[in-house]
Amino acid sequence: MIPIVAVVGKSNSGKTTLIEKLIPELNKRGYRVATVKHHNHALEIDTPGKDSWRHKQAGAQTTFISTPGELGMVHSVDSDMTPIEIRDRFIDNADLVLAEGFKQLSVPKIEVFRSCAHAEPVSAGDENLLAIASDTDLDIGAPCCGLNDSERLVDIIEQQVINITGPDIIVHVDGVQVPLKPFIHDFMRNALQGMLRALKGCEDAKRIDITIK
Amino acid sequence: MIPIVAVVGKSNSGKTTLIEKLIPELNKRGYRVATVKHHNHALEIDTPGKDSWRHKQAGAQTTFISTPGELGMVHSVDSDMTPIEIRDRFIDNADLVLAEGFKQLSVPKIEVFRSCAHAEPVSAGDENLLAIASDTDLDIGAPCCGLNDSERLVDIIEQQVINITGPDIIVHVDGVQVPLKPFIHDFMRNALQGMLRALKGCEDAKRIDITIK
Repeated sequence: MIPIVAVVGKSNSGKTTLIEKLIPELNKRGYRVATVKHHNHALEIDTPGKDSWRHKQAGAQTTFISTPGELGMVHSVDSDMTPIEIRDRFIDNADLVLAEGFKQLSVPKIEVFRSCAHAEPVSAGDENLLAIASDTDLDIGAPCCGLNDSERLVDIIEQQVINITGPDIIVHVDGVQVPLKPFIHDFMRNALQGMLRALKGCEDAKRIDITIK
Repeated sequence: MIPIVAVVGKSNSGKTTLIEKLIPELNKRGYRVATVKHHNHALEIDTPGKDSWRHKQAGAQTTFISTPGELGMVHSVDSDMTPIEIRDRFIDNADLVLAEGFKQLSVPKIEVFRSCAHAEPVSAGDENLLAIASDTDLDIGAPCCGLNDSERLVDIIEQQVINITGPDIIVHVDGVQVPLKPFIHDFMRNALQGMLRALKGCEDAKRIDITIK
């Protein structure tokens, strides 16, 4: 499963700025990063999306714009999707998801804290807190790094998040994940690994997806 | 596999306008539609995407904006993704993909032709042509419907495209689809259906995804 780290902190604490420092350091180490940001306002895909906007207005649930450098998507939802739902549904070739905000999520977190902007950090006592990036030395039960110390923060992400997720098997039925008991999980994994051994190209696979429909 | 229909025609023939008529008719019959449109210019997610834009600039491969009504995504690509690639990678709960343009794709097609705008249709002789929507009567080897005849066009899509795709098994290894010989295909499908019969919630499944990583 692709791990998620949430970068949390009060508004104006510098979350986007920290993410801008973490991504190049993660890229430098070979990791592909997807990010998720929440917004309360309606989304607007402006130029060159006029026709796509018309598709959406006509009732398309999802609209894509394919350009030479980027693929854009607008997908209608009944309520805000969480980073976990977004990962499970749309992200399949990233090594890490960085979520900006979402402090209520139960995922590993890094808090950004600037003493000049706020009186108290928001994550004191949060057992998911991996580290705090701060302009002052804080002792709230997790390593305290400088606001620019992306190397050390990525070291922590690497050691505690990226490198601990093992091989896994996940089953979705009509888009909803089905919980697998450990016995079923291991039985299916072993049986599938046996079947797939016969197929060319699966030898060094990092991820295999099988869809039945 | 989710079927794709391309709505083709010369520029200014009325492709977007026809799609705007097809989608509500498809929705009325209970089908969820995703659309794909090509564009040569760079994509711009404007307000409220400022922070997301910064994520992309910093090197995120994919950036999502989650809002109460829509999920937006911008995904970096090396070259334009085709509707087939987009479907295989990102679309999992639509019943039909309508592609605007992409006349070179080998998928079922509807051509929009307006004699007042162009001299000749583009799809004469294309064996994938399902129907032509035109302001004049044409005989190019496929049913000719009126420009507003979305009911008949959707009848044709329903009969010839949506209802003929049967149960299928698809394997992706690290994001690349692996061709399955018919024997392996049927063996895997039967074995998996047997395994999954033991799981609650799979009885009436339309689609099951299994991921090993």
